[in-house]
Amino acid sequence: MNMNPPDLMPWTHVEFEERLRAKGDRYHIHHPFNVRMRNGQLSPTQIRGWVANRFYYQVCIPLKDAAILSNCDDRETRRRWMVRILDHDGFGDNAGGIEAWTRLGEAVGIAREDLLSLRYVLPPVKFAVDAYVNFARRAPWQEAVCSSLTEMFAPEIHKERLANWPTHYQWIEPEGLGYFRSRISLAQRDVEHGLEVTLNHFTTRAAQGRALDILQFKLDILWSMLDAIERAYPDSATELQGQSA
Amino acid sequence: MNMNPPDLMPWTHVEFEERLRAKGDRYHIHHPFNVRMRNGQLSPTQIRGWVANRFYYQVCIPLKDAAILSNCDDRETRRRWMVRILDHDGFGDNAGGIEAWTRLGEAVGIAREDLLSLRYVLPPVKFAVDAYVNFARRAPWQEAVCSSLTEMFAPEIHKERLANWPTHYQWIEPEGLGYFRSRISLAQRDVEHGLEVTLNHFTTRAAQGRALDILQFKLDILWSMLDAIERAYPDSATELQGQSA
Repeated sequence: MNMNPPDLMPWTHVEFEERLRAKGDRYHIHHPFNVRMRNGQLSPTQIRGWVANRFYYQVCIPLKDAAILSNCDDRETRRRWMVRILDHDGFGDNAGGIEAWTRLGEAVGIAREDLLSLRYVLPPVKFAVDAYVNFARRAPWQEAVCSSLTEMFAPEIHKERLANWPTHYQWIEPEGLGYFRSRISLAQRDVEHGLEVTLNHFTTRAAQGRALDILQFKLDILWSMLDAIERAYPDSATELQGQSA
Repeated sequence: MNMNPPDLMPWTHVEFEERLRAKGDRYHIHHPFNVRMRNGQLSPTQIRGWVANRFYYQVCIPLKDAAILSNCDDRETRRRWMVRILDHDGFGDNAGGIEAWTRLGEAVGIAREDLLSLRYVLPPVKFAVDAYVNFARRAPWQEAVCSSLTEMFAPEIHKERLANWPTHYQWIEPEGLGYFRSRISLAQRDVEHGLEVTLNHFTTRAAQGRALDILQFKLDILWSMLDAIERAYPDSATELQGQSA
């Protein structure tokens, strides 16, 4: 008697990875606000609103990665994962991703101290990003790794900004786009490791289904950040929203 | 020499409480979606969307209160706080607040199992409510108590529903409104304890300012829940959004 009916057999690694990658159709690259960004339809205030809010995601990434390290009992994994914190916080001569985003902020006209103060971060953006960090704090580390796999879809969104911004948003200094450039190769390296962990950890059909749900949870986080930014910055917006210093 | 210039002197309890209560002008009773609810302008689908999403807040309240208990080293406080979990989860013949909300769900036309499955909970609503629970897990218990003080403003919103729904939404069985009725006196009792803790714990001017920020954080949670519900349920919506079972 077959205890594993065919429809509950685990997917092969190839098939499982295909299903993970198929989630790309829910990536925020398809969010109306991102589509308008790509098409050059956003005002300087809208671009600034996006840069200032997305900065909160940037500063939380090392906290998320440290939470993963804090739950991970495998030294080899920690050694490989560690590099993500270095990428964002910087090391030696490498100023790191957070600093690169700060330069993007300056290029779009947000003073460094205003960006760093987080005063323009909308509450729902904070709640969404914090959900990601808190998931990493509480979930088994392999699940938190799985949630990072939206990076599979990131090179495309970075490439599209590099291709379109210099034409559509000529008021932004091109040097400000260094963050997007740097992430393309780093994201590809990160995805390789994240996929390796995920494909090897989620080995039953039910576990693979859970991995897809975790990836969807992360897609929802990115999507709802743009929902909130879009709501706060309609076409009529003329200044950033935030607490006075 | 006066080391405490007058503007940095702590507020008296009376003045501090007045400033906490003044935050009521940011309570979600003033959110456009709630205003339309009060005025009878919401469709059955919009009411159902609100009931199904707000249910996630209801089910998380006992987790939040248990998190406060888990951080509280004062037995007397725990004995008094404990009753909040009983209120929501029920005890003896009292079915509790979560069950009362489930009856509200049935009264507006949401099957019990659908409500309990949380399948209609929008991601940003989940992120906002989870932010509240996670704050209670990580903050000193007195800060988490302070964040509960939006209850100061709750009796009014419940009373307004009890007064207006039977007229505006005659399709809802009036017995479904028991939750709102039960909360009026309970909220008043809870506020008394919450204020006592808050007024006695935040005693410097800086700490009092922090208490106001914490209350604002909680107001932002409630407000952004309605933002998300309003976005997901425009007037044209005809059915609930959610994963298929």
